Amino acid sequence: MDFLSLDNRLREALREDIGRGDVTTESIVEGTTSEHTCEARIMAKEELVLAGWPVFVRVFELLGPIEVRSQAEDGKLIPAGSTLGCLRGPGHALLRGERVALNLLQRMSGVASLTREYALAIAGTRTRILDTRKTTPLWRDLEKYAVRVGGGVNHRRGLDDGILIKENHIAWAGGIRNAINACVRRSSHLQKVEIEVTNLDQLEEALQAGAEIVMLDNMNVEQVREAVRVSAGRCLLEVSGGVNLSTIRKYAETGVDFVSVGALTHSYRARDISMLFVTLG
Amino acid sequence: MDFLSLDNRLREALREDIGRGDVTTESIVEGTTSEHTCEARIMAKEELVLAGWPVFVRVFELLGPIEVRSQAEDGKLIPAGSTLGCLRGPGHALLRGERVALNLLQRMSGVASLTREYALAIAGTRTRILDTRKTTPLWRDLEKYAVRVGGGVNHRRGLDDGILIKENHIAWAGGIRNAINACVRRSSHLQKVEIEVTNLDQLEEALQAGAEIVMLDNMNVEQVREAVRVSAGRCLLEVSGGVNLSTIRKYAETGVDFVSVGALTHSYRARDISMLFVTLG
Amino acid sequence: MDFLSLDNRLREALREDIGRGDVTTESIVEGTTSEHTCEARIMAKEELVLAGWPVFVRVFELLGPIEVRSQAEDGKLIPAGSTLGCLRGPGHALLRGERVALNLLQRMSGVASLTREYALAIAGTRTRILDTRKTTPLWRDLEKYAVRVGGGVNHRRGLDDGILIKENHIAWAGGIRNAINACVRRSSHLQKVEIEVTNLDQLEEALQAGAEIVMLDNMNVEQVREAVRVSAGRCLLEVSGGVNLSTIRKYAETGVDFVSVGALTHSYRARDISMLFVTLG
Amino acid sequence: MDFLSLDNRLREALREDIGRGDVTTESIVEGTTSEHTCEARIMAKEELVLAGWPVFVRVFELLGPIEVRSQAEDGKLIPAGSTLGCLRGPGHALLRGERVALNLLQRMSGVASLTREYALAIAGTRTRILDTRKTTPLWRDLEKYAVRVGGGVNHRRGLDDGILIKENHIAWAGGIRNAINACVRRSSHLQKVEIEVTNLDQLEEALQAGAEIVMLDNMNVEQVREAVRVSAGRCLLEVSGGVNLSTIRKYAETGVDFVSVGALTHSYRARDISMLFVTLG
Amino acid sequence: MDFLSLDNRLREALREDIGRGDVTTESIVEGTTSEHTCEARIMAKEELVLAGWPVFVRVFELLGPIEVRSQAEDGKLIPAGSTLGCLRGPGHALLRGERVALNLLQRMSGVASLTREYALAIAGTRTRILDTRKTTPLWRDLEKYAVRVGGGVNHRRGLDDGILIKENHIAWAGGIRNAINACVRRSSHLQKVEIEVTNLDQLEEALQAGAEIVMLDNMNVEQVREAVRVSAGRCLLEVSGGVNLSTIRKYAETGVDFVSVGALTHSYRARDISMLFVTLG
Amino acid sequence: MDFLSLDNRLREALREDIGRGDVTTESIVEGTTSEHTCEARIMAKEELVLAGWPVFVRVFELLGPIEVRSQAEDGKLIPAGSTLGCLRGPGHALLRGERVALNLLQRMSGVASLTREYALAIAGTRTRILDTRKTTPLWRDLEKYAVRVGGGVNHRRGLDDGILIKENHIAWAGGIRNAINACVRRSSHLQKVEIEVTNLDQLEEALQAGAEIVMLDNMNVEQVREAVRVSAGRCLLEVSGGVNLSTIRKYAETGVDFVSVGALTHSYRARDISMLFVTLG
Repeated sequence: MDFLSLDNRLREALREDIGRGDVTTESIVEGTTSEHTCEARIMAKEELVLAGWPVFVRVFELLGPIEVRSQAEDGKLIPAGSTLGCLRGPGHALLRGERVALNLLQRMSGVASLTREYALAIAGTRTRILDTRKTTPLWRDLEKYAVRVGGGVNHRRGLDDGILIKENHIAWAGGIRNAINACVRRSSHLQKVEIEVTNLDQLEEALQAGAEIVMLDNMNVEQVREAVRVSAGRCLLEVSGGVNLSTIRKYAETGVDFVSVGALTHSYRARDISMLFVTLG
Repeated sequence: MDFLSLDNRLREALREDIGRGDVTTESIVEGTTSEHTCEARIMAKEELVLAGWPVFVRVFELLGPIEVRSQAEDGKLIPAGSTLGCLRGPGHALLRGERVALNLLQRMSGVASLTREYALAIAGTRTRILDTRKTTPLWRDLEKYAVRVGGGVNHRRGLDDGILIKENHIAWAGGIRNAINACVRRSSHLQKVEIEVTNLDQLEEALQAGAEIVMLDNMNVEQVREAVRVSAGRCLLEVSGGVNLSTIRKYAETGVDFVSVGALTHSYRARDISMLFVTLG
Repeated sequence: MDFLSLDNRLREALREDIGRGDVTTESIVEGTTSEHTCEARIMAKEELVLAGWPVFVRVFELLGPIEVRSQAEDGKLIPAGSTLGCLRGPGHALLRGERVALNLLQRMSGVASLTREYALAIAGTRTRILDTRKTTPLWRDLEKYAVRVGGGVNHRRGLDDGILIKENHIAWAGGIRNAINACVRRSSHLQKVEIEVTNLDQLEEALQAGAEIVMLDNMNVEQVREAVRVSAGRCLLEVSGGVNLSTIRKYAETGVDFVSVGALTHSYRARDISMLFVTLG
Repeated sequence: MDFLSLDNRLREALREDIGRGDVTTESIVEGTTSEHTCEARIMAKEELVLAGWPVFVRVFELLGPIEVRSQAEDGKLIPAGSTLGCLRGPGHALLRGERVALNLLQRMSGVASLTREYALAIAGTRTRILDTRKTTPLWRDLEKYAVRVGGGVNHRRGLDDGILIKENHIAWAGGIRNAINACVRRSSHLQKVEIEVTNLDQLEEALQAGAEIVMLDNMNVEQVREAVRVSAGRCLLEVSGGVNLSTIRKYAETGVDFVSVGALTHSYRARDISMLFVTLG
Repeated sequence: MDFLSLDNRLREALREDIGRGDVTTESIVEGTTSEHTCEARIMAKEELVLAGWPVFVRVFELLGPIEVRSQAEDGKLIPAGSTLGCLRGPGHALLRGERVALNLLQRMSGVASLTREYALAIAGTRTRILDTRKTTPLWRDLEKYAVRVGGGVNHRRGLDDGILIKENHIAWAGGIRNAINACVRRSSHLQKVEIEVTNLDQLEEALQAGAEIVMLDNMNVEQVREAVRVSAGRCLLEVSGGVNLSTIRKYAETGVDFVSVGALTHSYRARDISMLFVTLG
Repeated sequence: MDFLSLDNRLREALREDIGRGDVTTESIVEGTTSEHTCEARIMAKEELVLAGWPVFVRVFELLGPIEVRSQAEDGKLIPAGSTLGCLRGPGHALLRGERVALNLLQRMSGVASLTREYALAIAGTRTRILDTRKTTPLWRDLEKYAVRVGGGVNHRRGLDDGILIKENHIAWAGGIRNAINACVRRSSHLQKVEIEVTNLDQLEEALQAGAEIVMLDNMNVEQVREAVRVSAGRCLLEVSGGVNLSTIRKYAETGVDFVSVGALTHSYRARDISMLFVTLG
């Protein structure tokens, strides 16, 4: 977990929630922030794949001296009702950080849990689950981390760390061959060239032009099976578009290398996690 | 829409996605950023309540001179297949801003569309839908805006703009009466005092101590109905916890003032929106 | 004291004063920053209500390891000539932080001391002193804290945490009734509605429309007394405008709930505090 | 006026005041920010030396398209009741910027007006008024600008743009001679060396060691007169400490070059300026 | 040129140079910033490959309204004494931006010119010049751009956009095979795997383990020639270490794909460029 | 070393290099950042004057708990092959900080080593070496520090901490006398006035107008000698322009006070320094 870049966002998120102060707690509890030491237990209220525990703890560390008394590990499958961990620290800090920390942990565990569902759906095949760039703005690193935690593999992390020629690029370049040539000639020798195609003719053209990865866009299972047969290992193949939990296994059984699933990061459900104070200040 | 605070986050989101440059487009298209003027059409691929169009446009404005050629209005119910609007501007800018702009627009429209579903479910009652603080960190303002667009009402926007006495506060204060007294005495005279109760005895105690809003936490419909009867207009009543689309109407029919629904902002589904280039540079 | 949001401003203030370095000290004292440990005594050179001591200490903590050897408490009335506290730490850090730390402490104590004067002037009445938004930009939180320390009560902390309908809003809305109705209907159910009136007719209209707090703008004592009589507890009453130390008691004796005083934060006098080095490095 | 460094502070000040939105105006006035064009007149409610008009206007420019219809000029003496200028722009922007803009303009005009009083008090002498580093943190540049506008001269703007050897430095260096030697040897050849002395013996020692400016700390008029005689033009002389409006002329008549007055920036009174809406949207 | 990320650094660089103001110009020229329009001619005082002209212009645009009257193009070989371009704008802005703008343009042109020298030295071979990560912190994007302008090719732009297994990684992994396997298994499928080897045995082991690019570290020409023969096109080959302008051709003639040269960005010489005012305000 | 202003730039530089993560190390080494403790030795691969060691260490401190086991001192002349110091800490942190830390240390030592060469070239004369404002944007403080470490003296650190009247100012002012008068009258009494002249007539005019420092621009040795004779100690003299290592001694022997050398900071060569892991995690 890279706090170099994360801390500023966590602080900003705390400012968003705390604003000019926690008026309720300040009215109730007299004295300074550091005087009341509390202990809080964090519990999974439904089954989930835990992701984001170090981020959860970090939120509180930015607010005061926090001691982690016990903790689960990212990636574990947690049964409903289990304790994820316990934190001990100033009561004001625990109350001020609670919502932000839970908001992140619940979302990250939501991504990991959904990814696990997809991964289980294709268990036993050679296909791997890919995420997309359809992530929550400003939290892509955490969501892509949660995808890995849940058993998925990351696609591009931005426009800069992978070549992906899409429909618009092909049109601009004047065809698949031109587009691939331009990328081979001008892009970094460290990166492979991926291109999106919509039919088998385009696939063949892409392969001849030197594509190293081909994204099969919105093809049905039959087309994908044919694409696997035609490409015959000359490139990596990625299925993209229109895949869901009930259809993914059929795609995987065609032998494609990857299936990418936008829903992993754009339509997950936050998992239910609560934070209970077991000792008050 | 308040760009004073939004612009920095949008720029940061663009940096997250663009990183060190759009290597694909730069390899394909020669020349400088400003030379290729394109037009893009933004389309709803499923029915949705539009929310975030001004944010969507703003993303591109931060990248170059963009002209909005036609546009829908936030809050409208948009049928599947409709055009939301058209943008005209430098091709590089449209491609660089596309993913960030869509990621925001799809999420905001997801929140608004889900809120609309809840609002429709209780149509004809006097109850209003409230959101919670279970929002995506750093984007609370946009999500709460989308809730309003969808027909909901905003609860607290942070720990600072409303008093809400919860279980932990009551324990610290040594009871409901003490907690309410402390808040009445020490908090701003501009804010009302809300307290969370779990049964009717607590409700009565809260009313006698001067609570102006009472949150009924995880009560069933029967208990809520009794609470409405007992409180008899002496305070505003909010139902919280365990409410979903199929149960909300029963709660609303008890006559409570508000039902708060965390799912509006923590478990919405991004709506499917696409951006198609209709004219290339 | 919330260092989450304060630290950045303190660092920026230090940069403003230190610029490219403390050229005098660097020329005089050889060696690195950490080698010279000094002790400094902070003294009140006139009577004052102390406010800002934690901020004062924090400035130095941002510059090096500082030990607080003794200290007074915010809110205490300090006689002229008293020691407020002693700090021990690297000489370079003490010299670099001195001016910024004193500039803040002297101003905050100025606000608290002036507030105390107003509070004393109305001692024995039920009226409370309110501040305004006429604060020093970027330091509102510290000045409002100092008002509380001095015995005052905070009004709105921004445009967002309280409804206050003023003359321009009334004109736009087309009258008092319309304005109050709009706010009741559209603003948060957590906030009360305050409106500014200039005569008793407006007061009556405001009360009938449901105003919960009424600001009596620039009324004389006689008018205020009549307003108290007329409103008869139906709303909170705030006197605003043209009140000073010699007139405030007469206003308070009318029985109003609040008198707001802009001068608390816009025209205070910094209290004289000095920092003396008692041990050199 | 240097907006390169100022804009960020003004934006931050606006965020401090606006927070999550201007809830009153948003409730009252429907529609978007840009639809209501208003005109506001800014008036001096007491006599003042205007300072900060470009800053005042800039605050609004950061919020929307503002047109300045007429305006006074910084440095002018403005009679009570005069119009300082008129602004035209979106009503929402005018209301959102009003308090921040006035808070700055009133303070800056307070500094300039007080400086003018001091300057008038010594009119006809050769002495000039100096400010100090006792400025409001984060606004030193604006306050020092206001001092110049009021007829004063700026002392050091930070610890880095001037050598000033004070009591602690002398003690560390082991005497006046050592301290001056160290600074002459190690500091920039572009800066003069100033030293603080408390009696005539120290003055003589400083002169012999090569001091180019000497600050006479807390000396009475008689001592200062003698210092002027003794130094006989060998250095610039600055009187510091314990000077006020009623004593400054006597100091000036001794023939010293400068008198520095901390009160110019630490204990001024904000001048009364109001902003009235003359046309509503 | 991506101003989204560049503008903040340019503003910070201007603040570094301007500090609290251009005291010389402000003393000399009365009036406000915008009143004096000047024209400046920018001239190459020695032969150079121009790089950074858009950055140069951007610096001034951040300070005021600037008109570019004529301009050369990045990548052109410019003879000594030629005019690179002319700018017209407020005199104050031209003087305030001059040093920062020139500092960047001279350095970038230095990088491009040195790259050109290396590129010319191997003209006619199939080898390409690579840069390294030995760039000036905070300006890597501009220096890597200048390398491209000068005819070179960019290696990794950071630790994140390319796999490069070095000596320490090999030791940690327990050998070349383990290291390559780990990267193939865990790193992005979009990136190729490069590994550094120091002899031919390691080269063979790397090839068998699946390395796609091999860096030949500090090998002499003879060894490199043998490496080219042995690898026989099974991977890309990069020569690294100890290459200079007089030895590079011999390396290139072995047929390697790349030679990387740290000096391009860590030991270039700023080219001599001046800015002359031809019209004063 | 002032980390108050430096830390942000170091963090930004780390982000520039690390980007979204060190993908190679993460692929190779399993486990969290803190588990692998390594020791690294830093070695001078050529003779150099060390400058920047505290900055070098600071880079790593920002990434994790680092222990410095031995270290050289800034300013020392280090023979080729010597160990500069050893660091112990988490392996991931050492690998992530390595390039940024070395890039700074090599450059700063490059500046110091070159300055030392110039200083040695004029050893025994009374002349001192000055740097210029031709520094790397955003790193001026470090480069000017390195100049001091190498035995040079700093000229202005910005446009704000010294008056330097150049050709354009003279033209604007309408002559040397007017320009000097304006600066004497309007600039700070704490700063001396320097002016650039190109011949002896201008020198004489400048002296009569009260210049305290005169820069002799692009004069040959003979002219400089005459300038020293003519000025006869009435001002400080600085030679500027066209001086290099082989000509500087002749200039120094004329008796001028300063020779300024732009190359110290714009055309130095990074010194060769390596970091070797001696213990792996």
